[in-house]
Amino acid sequence: MKIINGTINSPKGFKSAGNFIGIKKQKKDLAIIYSEVDAVTAGVLTLNKVKAACVVRNQEILNSIDKIRAIVINSGNANACTGEEGKQNNVIMAQTLAKSLDIEADKVITASTGVIGVQLDTNIIVEGIKQSAKLLDINQQAGLDAAEAIMTTDTFTKNICVQIEIDKKLVTLSGIAKGSGMIHPNMATMLGFITTDAKVSQSTLNNLLKEIVDDTYNMISVDGDTSTNDMVIVMANGASECSEITENHSQFNKFKEAFYYVNEFLAKQIISDGEGATKFLEVSISGANSKDNAKKLAKSIISSSLVKAAFFGCDANWGRILAAMGYSEADFNPQSVNISFKSEAGLIDLMKNGVPISFDEEIALKILKPKHINILISLSDGNHKAKAWGCDLSYEYVKINGEYRS
Amino acid sequence: MKIINGTINSPKGFKSAGNFIGIKKQKKDLAIIYSEVDAVTAGVLTLNKVKAACVVRNQEILNSIDKIRAIVINSGNANACTGEEGKQNNVIMAQTLAKSLDIEADKVITASTGVIGVQLDTNIIVEGIKQSAKLLDINQQAGLDAAEAIMTTDTFTKNICVQIEIDKKLVTLSGIAKGSGMIHPNMATMLGFITTDAKVSQSTLNNLLKEIVDDTYNMISVDGDTSTNDMVIVMANGASECSEITENHSQFNKFKEAFYYVNEFLAKQIISDGEGATKFLEVSISGANSKDNAKKLAKSIISSSLVKAAFFGCDANWGRILAAMGYSEADFNPQSVNISFKSEAGLIDLMKNGVPISFDEEIALKILKPKHINILISLSDGNHKAKAWGCDLSYEYVKINGEYRS
Repeated sequence: MKIINGTINSPKGFKSAGNFIGIKKQKKDLAIIYSEVDAVTAGVLTLNKVKAACVVRNQEILNSIDKIRAIVINSGNANACTGEEGKQNNVIMAQTLAKSLDIEADKVITASTGVIGVQLDTNIIVEGIKQSAKLLDINQQAGLDAAEAIMTTDTFTKNICVQIEIDKKLVTLSGIAKGSGMIHPNMATMLGFITTDAKVSQSTLNNLLKEIVDDTYNMISVDGDTSTNDMVIVMANGASECSEITENHSQFNKFKEAFYYVNEFLAKQIISDGEGATKFLEVSISGANSKDNAKKLAKSIISSSLVKAAFFGCDANWGRILAAMGYSEADFNPQSVNISFKSEAGLIDLMKNGVPISFDEEIALKILKPKHINILISLSDGNHKAKAWGCDLSYEYVKINGEYRS
Repeated sequence: MKIINGTINSPKGFKSAGNFIGIKKQKKDLAIIYSEVDAVTAGVLTLNKVKAACVVRNQEILNSIDKIRAIVINSGNANACTGEEGKQNNVIMAQTLAKSLDIEADKVITASTGVIGVQLDTNIIVEGIKQSAKLLDINQQAGLDAAEAIMTTDTFTKNICVQIEIDKKLVTLSGIAKGSGMIHPNMATMLGFITTDAKVSQSTLNNLLKEIVDDTYNMISVDGDTSTNDMVIVMANGASECSEITENHSQFNKFKEAFYYVNEFLAKQIISDGEGATKFLEVSISGANSKDNAKKLAKSIISSSLVKAAFFGCDANWGRILAAMGYSEADFNPQSVNISFKSEAGLIDLMKNGVPISFDEEIALKILKPKHINILISLSDGNHKAKAWGCDLSYEYVKINGEYRS
């Protein structure tokens, strides 16, 4: 697998655009991803009971057809909790793009992100989509523009492109995503869009996406809040001319590895850009008695406000980690817990078999100063593992979210 | 029911003490509550799988005997995650007090609160308990000292005393509690201690406590973290000479009401003193299709970091409330939701039947300025209600918890 300097329109047969149309005050706020031919699609959508108009419509589309042509995304307005009018405006988004590109409206997936409960201005949306469709291009700038246009409080674009060879054909996979608050995905995620020119069977793509989302996006948390608009959508248009990838394909694992890499990369990027984050925290659990328990433990630690605030303060307060494990509802033996912290500055052991180890506070402080911290937890309850990613809780998070609408 | 200016030692036959013994740097750190005669007891303890030594021992005592004589509480050190040595030190606490008061050690309940994972200094504990036992008194200062000695990051004591008449006998109920971080009780709570001179049957006291804890302490959240040391213990010594209270007693409801009041008061006081809190938030759900769903909705809102940060910023960002309801796993109809905010400055409607109402931002800001905010949510799914209490998320919370151990 090769990581290349590409973006969402790098796989063959894809174009994209990113544009400012006037939903936000001045930043880019509309993105389009377009495949020249029908692309096999799979998606996972938020499990929040309050679903944005786009989520409801996309679910219907994903249930009834397996190929799409385009995705249109606006930022600056989530079009969630907007009732019947919001539902109609969402359909207008799809219809406007379909008309501009001469494709069927039910082959257009929509996504919205931003403030909840405000109606979209249809004049802006209709005119904006028409103009943006004209900008669709295969050049790299058009790809980066799309990555930029889906951002809200993000401070950088999340963008990845990898290449593999399947049947001696070059296959490209790309992804873009946005964070960075209301991030606590539940079987789904924030916004993530993946394109590939691989030919993939629909059921394989579906299964792969569900499995991988569970281990990547569903294992990150910025603030414990699951959004109303979360989604990951993948489009595979087959333009690389490789033979169809199914679970039985001889190079299935190669594709799976690349697909996993793209998704994990985007999930981690979202955490790196968590609202107000000064630390990137990776929790690794090993020795758990089941995969499910390993995941529950990792997720509980990464979601604890007290753990997050301690890392903001570079405080080796491992007791809060054990407390978070304790209320995770996972089954584990507290007497088997080993805890260490690791960073580029070194490694320090804090607990062995459930009993604290006395440690040098100065060394601990030195190890906790860098941005990237590994929290290593081993149990002796079994041989299951899990990882989760999170960020610290900073003054800046409070500031951003105390003032978000203003 | 009369609220009087009393404290934990006001019910007949109780004494208390609060003292500085050297666990903390300079603040009071040891409290004792003592009944001159055997007191019927009931308790609820944390469900965190990682339990402090005192929680494990208390559970054994509550399972095997129904009357106790005393409670000894230290602050500044949670004696949690301290292995076999911590277990022994906890037994030493109970034995030392038992010896000083000439009572049986298994009639002494223990409690610890403070930093996790540090061993208690037994010399300090033994000498400190001996000295403190000599201070036991019925005067008000001794009651207030006990309330003060159980505090950690609390900024004020949580103390309440009420009187009722049962069988023409004056019955007094008192309670003290401590917050104010790692507060997200799960079937139990932080520390709460209730004394009463009512005569109450053990099974009635048990049932009442469990029911009331579920509706009071279990409906508050400061930060979503459930502690390793949570407990509420009640002692009823019968010294008022009223006839025994059971569910069939003609004045059972009067006692229940007073007991409920004491516990709800303490739960709310804990929230008022939530770490870094600038707001007291009360969420009221009505019209839910079950009590359980009403509670899930209320608790989810009060636990959302995004909701809490919005109130810190006086931002009427009701969309986050709806998002938190959506991921609560409660069953409700999003199209039936009405949302209003209320404070001493007025009331403002924000959503009617699931659709946003346009509102005046200046009026909303005025209503959100006061410290005490009511979040009113009505559904038309049934006639069940619930309340939950929480606080906002402030810079100060992050500061306190980034620096807690230092």
